[in-house]
Amino acid sequence: MLQRRSLRLLSSLSSPSRRCVVPQLSSPLRCRSPRAYSIHADAAVGTKIQDIDPTKLTIERTTTPKSLLPPEQLVFGRNFTDHMLSLEWTATEGWLPARITPYQNLSLDPATCVFHYAFECFEGMKAYKDKNGNIRLFRPDKNMARLNKSAARIALPTFDGDSLIDLIGKLVKLDERFIPEARGYSLYLRPTMIGTQRTLGVGPPGSALLYVIASPVGPYYPTGFKAVSLEATDYAVRAWPGGVGDKKLGANYAPCIVPQMQAASRGFHQNLWLFGEEEYVTEVGTMNLFAAIKNKETGKPELLTAPLDGTILEGVTRDSVLGLARERLVPKGWEVSERKFTMKELADAADEGRMMEVFGAGTAAIVSPVRRISWKGRLVECGLADNVEAGPVAQQMKDWMEAIQYGDEEHPWSHKVL
Amino acid sequence: MLQRRSLRLLSSLSSPSRRCVVPQLSSPLRCRSPRAYSIHADAAVGTKIQDIDPTKLTIERTTTPKSLLPPEQLVFGRNFTDHMLSLEWTATEGWLPARITPYQNLSLDPATCVFHYAFECFEGMKAYKDKNGNIRLFRPDKNMARLNKSAARIALPTFDGDSLIDLIGKLVKLDERFIPEARGYSLYLRPTMIGTQRTLGVGPPGSALLYVIASPVGPYYPTGFKAVSLEATDYAVRAWPGGVGDKKLGANYAPCIVPQMQAASRGFHQNLWLFGEEEYVTEVGTMNLFAAIKNKETGKPELLTAPLDGTILEGVTRDSVLGLARERLVPKGWEVSERKFTMKELADAADEGRMMEVFGAGTAAIVSPVRRISWKGRLVECGLADNVEAGPVAQQMKDWMEAIQYGDEEHPWSHKVL
Repeated sequence: MLQRRSLRLLSSLSSPSRRCVVPQLSSPLRCRSPRAYSIHADAAVGTKIQDIDPTKLTIERTTTPKSLLPPEQLVFGRNFTDHMLSLEWTATEGWLPARITPYQNLSLDPATCVFHYAFECFEGMKAYKDKNGNIRLFRPDKNMARLNKSAARIALPTFDGDSLIDLIGKLVKLDERFIPEARGYSLYLRPTMIGTQRTLGVGPPGSALLYVIASPVGPYYPTGFKAVSLEATDYAVRAWPGGVGDKKLGANYAPCIVPQMQAASRGFHQNLWLFGEEEYVTEVGTMNLFAAIKNKETGKPELLTAPLDGTILEGVTRDSVLGLARERLVPKGWEVSERKFTMKELADAADEGRMMEVFGAGTAAIVSPVRRISWKGRLVECGLADNVEAGPVAQQMKDWMEAIQYGDEEHPWSHKVL
Repeated sequence: MLQRRSLRLLSSLSSPSRRCVVPQLSSPLRCRSPRAYSIHADAAVGTKIQDIDPTKLTIERTTTPKSLLPPEQLVFGRNFTDHMLSLEWTATEGWLPARITPYQNLSLDPATCVFHYAFECFEGMKAYKDKNGNIRLFRPDKNMARLNKSAARIALPTFDGDSLIDLIGKLVKLDERFIPEARGYSLYLRPTMIGTQRTLGVGPPGSALLYVIASPVGPYYPTGFKAVSLEATDYAVRAWPGGVGDKKLGANYAPCIVPQMQAASRGFHQNLWLFGEEEYVTEVGTMNLFAAIKNKETGKPELLTAPLDGTILEGVTRDSVLGLARERLVPKGWEVSERKFTMKELADAADEGRMMEVFGAGTAAIVSPVRRISWKGRLVECGLADNVEAGPVAQQMKDWMEAIQYGDEEHPWSHKVL
């Protein structure tokens, strides 16, 4: 699989008589018929033949370490560290021993199912350097739980989350020199799972690869917040009930690009996904969305976000913002609501002087303040004065989150890598 | 990109200081910011800087030709021919010269966008050997048109369809010995387009790879039709208005597996996708669905299939069945309808003795007769006597289609490879 030193699963591809995906497997399971679901259904969804065993990790260090880029030249997801973590899975053996190797290409048969049927899911998480030089992950258990849910939904294998956190810690330690020390900087981690069965039959993959790559990143807003403008999208739908919009699948991303480009072509930074005739507000681009308004009935300030009804990504930042708001804003008189709300509700709040602020929430930016939303030919102003780039809740959330992420505040959400 | 002889786009990956996706591009376009949509929006959707030029094809023949498998051992999409066709595209240069090379692995950076965001779409089509030894493709123009629509929807490049048909013909000619001569056999062709930009920013890919692999296949029903049983799925939804269910994207496939496995675990061959509270009948597994019933009002036989409302794959076989039915069944008193119809309508037809037959339609099987459908705790019988495996319309359609596909009948749908 890895090009430099082939892993066993996808090696020996040149044999002209090769006929199966997983040459070393016992013959009845070798090549799954696309129609023989009943035989393998239980084996392929979530059952663990052999779980991840972190003690079996092998490490091959690079002999050509990369130079570090000046921090100001870092761009999200463009540069990667010296090493990567890889684990292969087969339906009969389960998770094979983990390997840390030099960062390198994947070598895959062109018939591999990840290229045809989008057997792929991923996570986004970050490692931070604290003021004492410790490395910290932020709520990695949430990422592991979500990756398992994503994988199971597309018939990819599940795994023990603590074991993968342990292995990710080893990768991060090895590539520690790539974590910039300045505030706002971090090492973005991208756990990715892909189906590697190399047949075109549409069925549960008999093999998979889980890998983690790491990219040093700078602050999303290097010179301070810059509020964005959104265009509400009414002609395309990101997710629907009974669909997979709540999972972090590759399938949810490629279809988002054209609507984003359409919004950009009219001068907006991102598109805002609405749902249904009611025009419920769901997500912004690839982030969850929060709105702070004065509630029409109670007159109290209310922090609003869409509920986890299957159409909303279960964002770790979303969950963290909600948790902090319930702990620290509710005592100050706030209401915190996970409920459906419509674009009209936001527009009414703006029209009636009840709009306080709107912001996106995601791992990359933590929070991303919104200045205005284009909707039905009008601009809905989101509470920011012309010379202000972020509302007080967005600013407060960023400060609270960073204090935990960078270890200024000891908190159970911060996981110290030992 | 191809492992044996690296193409220029993805070569030189080992340089530790590499920072961009497309090293040879001019610097402003090298590394697209995920947020800079407005700059590149026009360039990335459908605009062709340089279209495919079939005269620039280069061919590298294999030095290790594969042995042919006995026809009875052929399994769909498991064995491939000696060669593959590949074309790279970059946002600034357009389509680079096509190459036919030995079938080989793709070597891709683990950050490549196809692994993360499902930038992938494909086609399924077949090459047939006629009784005079000619090679024929079936309606390849329809596949090219659909691949272009799929690609444009996920910000991948479009291309001139006739040029790709020309190149596919060259590949098929070169690997002609893999096309079994017996009736029911063919060479399954899989044109595939993937995004190859190697950065994690969510944006339009700055580079792509279009490749075609070919797999010799036998008849879907080697011993004659075998009617299948379906389970109507009401807990998961395949597609949605405003979504991408009408495009042949990888994104539409991985999420289908678990519902199919669920159906299989209860003894059904495939699941039947319903839509909405009305329970409209949409597709079966990965095929379009047809039902023949006696129309309640007119008493005439009616061939029904769901309309192309954005939730239905625009199947080439679907279109061909409709075309043949309009040409050859309507004169015999049939009605042919592309309209929404519900599961209840089918159940009523079965209860009232108006059910004639039901069948799936797709490239792999042409038609796939349905015996019964499990729905709301009952079994809806689909008009087949116990000892009968296909209704007359399904049988007739298969015969008509094969007569055209294998060149027994000269027809504009059959494209002779010269």
